Amino acid sequence: MTRRLWSDFVSELEPYVPGEQPRIDNLVKLNTNENPYGPSPRVGEAIKAELGDGLRLYPPPNADRLKQAIADYHNVDVKQVFVGNGSDEVLAHAFNGLFRHGKALLFPDITYSFYPVYCGLYEIEGREIPLTDNFQIEVDDYLVPNGGIIFPNPNAPTGRLLSLDSIASLLRRNRDSVVCVDEAYIDFGGDSAIALVEEFDNLLVIQTLSKSRSLAGLRLGFAIGHPELIEALERIKNSFNSYPVSRLAIAGGVAAYADEDYFKQTCEAVIASRVALVKALETLGFEVIPSAANFVLARHPNHSGESLMSALRERNIIVRHFGAKRIEKFLRITVGTPQQMTFLRAALEEIIL
Amino acid sequence: MTRRLWSDFVSELEPYVPGEQPRIDNLVKLNTNENPYGPSPRVGEAIKAELGDGLRLYPPPNADRLKQAIADYHNVDVKQVFVGNGSDEVLAHAFNGLFRHGKALLFPDITYSFYPVYCGLYEIEGREIPLTDNFQIEVDDYLVPNGGIIFPNPNAPTGRLLSLDSIASLLRRNRDSVVCVDEAYIDFGGDSAIALVEEFDNLLVIQTLSKSRSLAGLRLGFAIGHPELIEALERIKNSFNSYPVSRLAIAGGVAAYADEDYFKQTCEAVIASRVALVKALETLGFEVIPSAANFVLARHPNHSGESLMSALRERNIIVRHFGAKRIEKFLRITVGTPQQMTFLRAALEEIIL
Repeated sequence: MTRRLWSDFVSELEPYVPGEQPRIDNLVKLNTNENPYGPSPRVGEAIKAELGDGLRLYPPPNADRLKQAIADYHNVDVKQVFVGNGSDEVLAHAFNGLFRHGKALLFPDITYSFYPVYCGLYEIEGREIPLTDNFQIEVDDYLVPNGGIIFPNPNAPTGRLLSLDSIASLLRRNRDSVVCVDEAYIDFGGDSAIALVEEFDNLLVIQTLSKSRSLAGLRLGFAIGHPELIEALERIKNSFNSYPVSRLAIAGGVAAYADEDYFKQTCEAVIASRVALVKALETLGFEVIPSAANFVLARHPNHSGESLMSALRERNIIVRHFGAKRIEKFLRITVGTPQQMTFLRAALEEIIL
Repeated sequence: MTRRLWSDFVSELEPYVPGEQPRIDNLVKLNTNENPYGPSPRVGEAIKAELGDGLRLYPPPNADRLKQAIADYHNVDVKQVFVGNGSDEVLAHAFNGLFRHGKALLFPDITYSFYPVYCGLYEIEGREIPLTDNFQIEVDDYLVPNGGIIFPNPNAPTGRLLSLDSIASLLRRNRDSVVCVDEAYIDFGGDSAIALVEEFDNLLVIQTLSKSRSLAGLRLGFAIGHPELIEALERIKNSFNSYPVSRLAIAGGVAAYADEDYFKQTCEAVIASRVALVKALETLGFEVIPSAANFVLARHPNHSGESLMSALRERNIIVRHFGAKRIEKFLRITVGTPQQMTFLRAALEEIIL
């Protein structure tokens, strides 16, 4: 058995299972929370300008231009910015560099399912804190000894938003470990905790360019926090891969931040689609968790999540269903274009009515 | 002190220091072993075709098209191929997944200086095995209890090649741990150990598209080995980052393998430049270690490595000098175009004669 050659912990790992990326045309793909609109046209132009002989050269190892663009946009110092090959890589480095203290890391029982996977990879004890009955994070429940706290805001896959006041209250009463706010979906309806970074040295905010910037295919994520938290991430990154962000990703990311109008328009269009989707679902009898993200979590009293998923799949629509308890009756539906939402609504009417 | 929030091991890390990526124009950059020729024009075309709205979608998490292109090129099964965001990421996962056995990992005393850094990151004991006096790897020196063996072939920064017979002999006598052959420079003058993968389930070969494929700026590397060794890497990767290879990197990598003529021409041009460079250096009195790579390690009896590096820098030429013992008198010079080599030669004549 060749497995004799594995490091021991490898057989114990339970890797993350990403949403399906099917190669079928004409599919309405509402399963991985991608933006229904493409990136700003400036991104493609900037990447084209970066092609050619220059690709033979390594990227600047610190991706300085990209860090500067992000720092300027969020009004922080460049030393408060860390960039990586997608926010999953940034999260991984944060788990490794900031959460290994021999104490439990706290996160919601219903949340991004990669968190327990990182715990497995870095041999961190994870402790799930139950959401309230209506799927909210109650910060008082996190005031127990811990080696760190992490949650998405808005939470995934619920879509529920936690207020900045609640986050500040948690930070104030939890000074001795890092609180990481994973803001993959913040641009679709919330205020970023980046506003609290100056006040709290124990706050790390992580964002991605995959969702609101429509660049899932390019792989870019970043963290903002106190320069010494960022330094921990840099030390890990420089012990792992000197150049995680390609020349094309640097150029594309900078261009994405240069097109604020496009960003605002597409975010507003997604939010308008979400409002219409929630209304349509409720009209059909769904219970919908209030969402500040580009997806909604919804269940129907007369149809199981699995049966709805299959029936939609037969109609060329893919949504995501999670087997986890408390949400096994729900579907997570990514917000698409008005046209996609009309198609979804028609399909659901056919299935349900 | 915000450092109180770091995981303990972070302060102990001694990160890798990559070669400088200066932003000065008209510099002859011979310090990071980049290819002096750009990538195949097909790479740019393929990436352009991938731009546009498609970037909003995550990449296929297994990068299947790229794995297939690499498998076809090297005549192995797709299950024997792992791909990553540069070969440094692939190396990191190999250290984590295959070298953590509570026994020392063996590598040459003069070698890629990232290996001890990975040992620090994954808390692996590293044991340096001295090269022979003429900087060769002697495989008999590696026949001691170990948790793994790794070396580049050709070795870096020496450029010396180890024969496939020697590698096979080592593999045969070291069945119970992984031997990783890091072939970043193999296309410039050696035979790949991929030929031995069918025979030895304990062999992992790692290559990069940064050097012979001129794609350092795109970030692509891969490993080839027994499917169960690959599975260990996949388990780590899927616990770290579901999509490490971007849509653009997949498209560009596939295109690079589709242009065999360009690949052969540019490799041959680099080899011809190396031959001319070695001759020029020897004429100037340098001792040059025999190189099968796209760089040479050379020293001059009357000039220190540091002084030569500074004098070249004044003439807008950057080369790399390592402070490590046994090679502190040497310079590592990347092989450039004939024009760059003529410029270097003129500068060295000015300095030395």
